Amino acid sequence: MIGKVLLVGAGPGDPELLTLRAVKAIQSADAVVFDRLVSPEILALAPTRSRKISVGKTAKAHSVPQEQINELLIDLARDGLAVTRLKGGDPLIFGRGSEEAAALAEAGIPVEYVPGITAAQGAASSTGIPLTHRGLATGVRYVTGHRAKDQPLDLDWSSLANEETTLVVYMGVASIAEIAAALIAHGMPRHLPVMAVADATTPRERRLISRLDEISQALAKAGLTAPVLFIIGHVVTLYRELPVCLPAGLFLDDTRIRVHA
Amino acid sequence: MIGKVLLVGAGPGDPELLTLRAVKAIQSADAVVFDRLVSPEILALAPTRSRKISVGKTAKAHSVPQEQINELLIDLARDGLAVTRLKGGDPLIFGRGSEEAAALAEAGIPVEYVPGITAAQGAASSTGIPLTHRGLATGVRYVTGHRAKDQPLDLDWSSLANEETTLVVYMGVASIAEIAAALIAHGMPRHLPVMAVADATTPRERRLISRLDEISQALAKAGLTAPVLFIIGHVVTLYRELPVCLPAGLFLDDTRIRVHA
Repeated sequence: MIGKVLLVGAGPGDPELLTLRAVKAIQSADAVVFDRLVSPEILALAPTRSRKISVGKTAKAHSVPQEQINELLIDLARDGLAVTRLKGGDPLIFGRGSEEAAALAEAGIPVEYVPGITAAQGAASSTGIPLTHRGLATGVRYVTGHRAKDQPLDLDWSSLANEETTLVVYMGVASIAEIAAALIAHGMPRHLPVMAVADATTPRERRLISRLDEISQALAKAGLTAPVLFIIGHVVTLYRELPVCLPAGLFLDDTRIRVHA
Repeated sequence: MIGKVLLVGAGPGDPELLTLRAVKAIQSADAVVFDRLVSPEILALAPTRSRKISVGKTAKAHSVPQEQINELLIDLARDGLAVTRLKGGDPLIFGRGSEEAAALAEAGIPVEYVPGITAAQGAASSTGIPLTHRGLATGVRYVTGHRAKDQPLDLDWSSLANEETTLVVYMGVASIAEIAAALIAHGMPRHLPVMAVADATTPRERRLISRLDEISQALAKAGLTAPVLFIIGHVVTLYRELPVCLPAGLFLDDTRIRVHA
């Protein structure tokens, strides 16, 4: 009997932001293969008898190469195990879930996806900053600041420099200076507000508000480290309007940001 | 004692795609105020004693104006009730959650957000089409095809016409012809694949694959009606590679789409 692999989004961090289906997938797993950003509280949902295997990717070092992860998943499924592959956020948004699925499909292993709350949604709900808002953002766009080793960022700056779309940058700590400079060079206002959120939806969540031309220095000064998500756009001006936005542990550096009336 | 309002994402349709926190919010509600896209299975989670109030928005007719919804939420909270405001998808992505939150904040009512799986993620996980994929899409972008009455679509076409970003159009049935034509006029390839998904993640889910220059006619021919989500981009070529993509009730119209090798 061949097993099956569920490619499951573990959400942004808070275990309560798992979907019901993700909880079931973890609770019924014979083997759980997980990334570094999946919290111990979430792993604790797996049966005691299940195998728990870390393939801990970090932004800078892929401790287990993707091909080896694919092989591991195939081997576990061929052993007849119910395999739950747990990824931070959503497996189909910067999660490489479709690469793993393709390798599994080629090996004849059944695959299913379980979506997860992605980091942008987690940060939005915890800070109260909407990703879209009438008059401020007609849409939202997710890009990654991660780059292949020694490669330039693969981003279309003229398309990205659009003030009316909220821009969310994942994995951008190392490249935010370059991203901000390129956006300004392509016409985005220097004073466009930016919120950086570290460890969103966890007890370690930290927030920093700055502007596009100052975010890089502000980030360094505040000492925020990965995982950090950047929300760039006029929606950030809504931050202080909402009572959900309590400044617990807040670094505020937004004296020149006009709050939306 | 003043009540509290939770602005809660009910996800794309499948009740199993609710987050644990959303389930708790529904189960502990004194009053549930819900949109048309929230399913009876999800409403059934609310306590029998709770008040269930439909404010059923549809794409064409807002059966209850936004101001009246705001007033209703304020009144319920002032009556001391625990109010759960249920919205399809995520309250902060085309959900007008932040408008309701602003009105509540102004009235001194405490507000919290609970994120939800947005329709794009639901459609991606059920069809197996990733929203990002190395070599095919460096990012993803959500826009809405909904427009204010008799107004033109408020979209920046030159920024949108970017082949390397997956473009997801919400609420686009009435405007997909105009959107497709404008994208082609701004440089997107005529043959760019498009998947339309109706009622994603529900038993009524229907899928249609076509190309940018033919999607409007194909949609009319297949008779897909709202809610329909459009996924536009090269990631759609991954559709048939994955075993999760069983063509149950599938309308396939993609003979000229080259499947990604």
